[in-house]
Amino acid sequence: MARLEFWLEYASTYSYLSAMRIDDLATQAGVEVVWRPFLLGPIFKAQGWSTSPFNLYLAKGRYMIRDLERLTAERDLPFTMPDPFPANTLLAARIASVGAGEGWIGPFSKAVFTAEFATGADIADRDTLERILTGLGLDGPRIMALSGTAEIKERLRDATAHAHGAGIFGAPSFVTSDGDLYWGDDRLEQALRAEACNAA
Amino acid sequence: MARLEFWLEYASTYSYLSAMRIDDLATQAGVEVVWRPFLLGPIFKAQGWSTSPFNLYLAKGRYMIRDLERLTAERDLPFTMPDPFPANTLLAARIASVGAGEGWIGPFSKAVFTAEFATGADIADRDTLERILTGLGLDGPRIMALSGTAEIKERLRDATAHAHGAGIFGAPSFVTSDGDLYWGDDRLEQALRAEACNAA
Repeated sequence: MARLEFWLEYASTYSYLSAMRIDDLATQAGVEVVWRPFLLGPIFKAQGWSTSPFNLYLAKGRYMIRDLERLTAERDLPFTMPDPFPANTLLAARIASVGAGEGWIGPFSKAVFTAEFATGADIADRDTLERILTGLGLDGPRIMALSGTAEIKERLRDATAHAHGAGIFGAPSFVTSDGDLYWGDDRLEQALRAEACNAA
Repeated sequence: MARLEFWLEYASTYSYLSAMRIDDLATQAGVEVVWRPFLLGPIFKAQGWSTSPFNLYLAKGRYMIRDLERLTAERDLPFTMPDPFPANTLLAARIASVGAGEGWIGPFSKAVFTAEFATGADIADRDTLERILTGLGLDGPRIMALSGTAEIKERLRDATAHAHGAGIFGAPSFVTSDGDLYWGDDRLEQALRAEACNAA
């Protein structure tokens, strides 16, 4: 079976774009998506960045917002920049690490991105995240408790270390079953085509 | 008439991609292309970078080469990374500033990118550049002399300052007649569509 890894960071505007369309595109391509939550912060820190490059490099940050305005308009998606940006995504990514094992990471991720980039909510907020879980018909308190366990914390740390080791330096990133890396929402179609061919 | 500014830097791999396809795409879109050579070096320096981000950030640099290998393969373009990278493009950009005024900047640019990224030549080399001019049926010695005049040096400095002021931070960049900025070969089609609509 064709399987594409989708490495996503919840603070990432371009991860929002991919999360909202990857299921449809992957179904059309006959490819299964493996959602891989990770944290970009430690990877940025390792290359000397204390925050998002969109904050460090102002022209790039301004351009990113304009680019997102145009792309979301073309795709009929709402778009608001959240404050603060980037969000602290540690808790969201830990909850997603639970969801990756329990099969609800896709709907959870789309709900998180919608709260963040459609309504401008701060997704570092525990109540916001628990409401998202409850809204999906999940057991919020159980999952929130699980997200604080040593096992889940380690799972997320391992995922981030794996991403770093695989040469991932931004999000979204896509990795085919033969290990080829694709970076950015702009490469989603190309990555899916490559994985469909690998598996054929 | 619809007119799209194409801001290009001769050391830029992604500018190579756009230069080799912009004429055909612009003709299809009914848009005139205004080639605007500039230097990224001073803009990178102003944000604290001493060289290309592809050299400063190794994972990004490795990825860029893989991305170019895939994209050039899809487009049946040859691809070789030149050494050194990035090339010193001061002379090439000055010659291009002459060519922008005399109507041969398009063919010159494509020949420079081909020498650099198809054959791996160092385009800082005067003889290489003069041979390119002669190969295009142009008066190499006259143009080389002109490229060293104060007027041409100032024209290139002004273009680079203009790019910086317009929020350009990478290459290729495209600017529509109403001043909207698009960055990267990935945005070429979108920029042409926008400019065609502006002028309609």
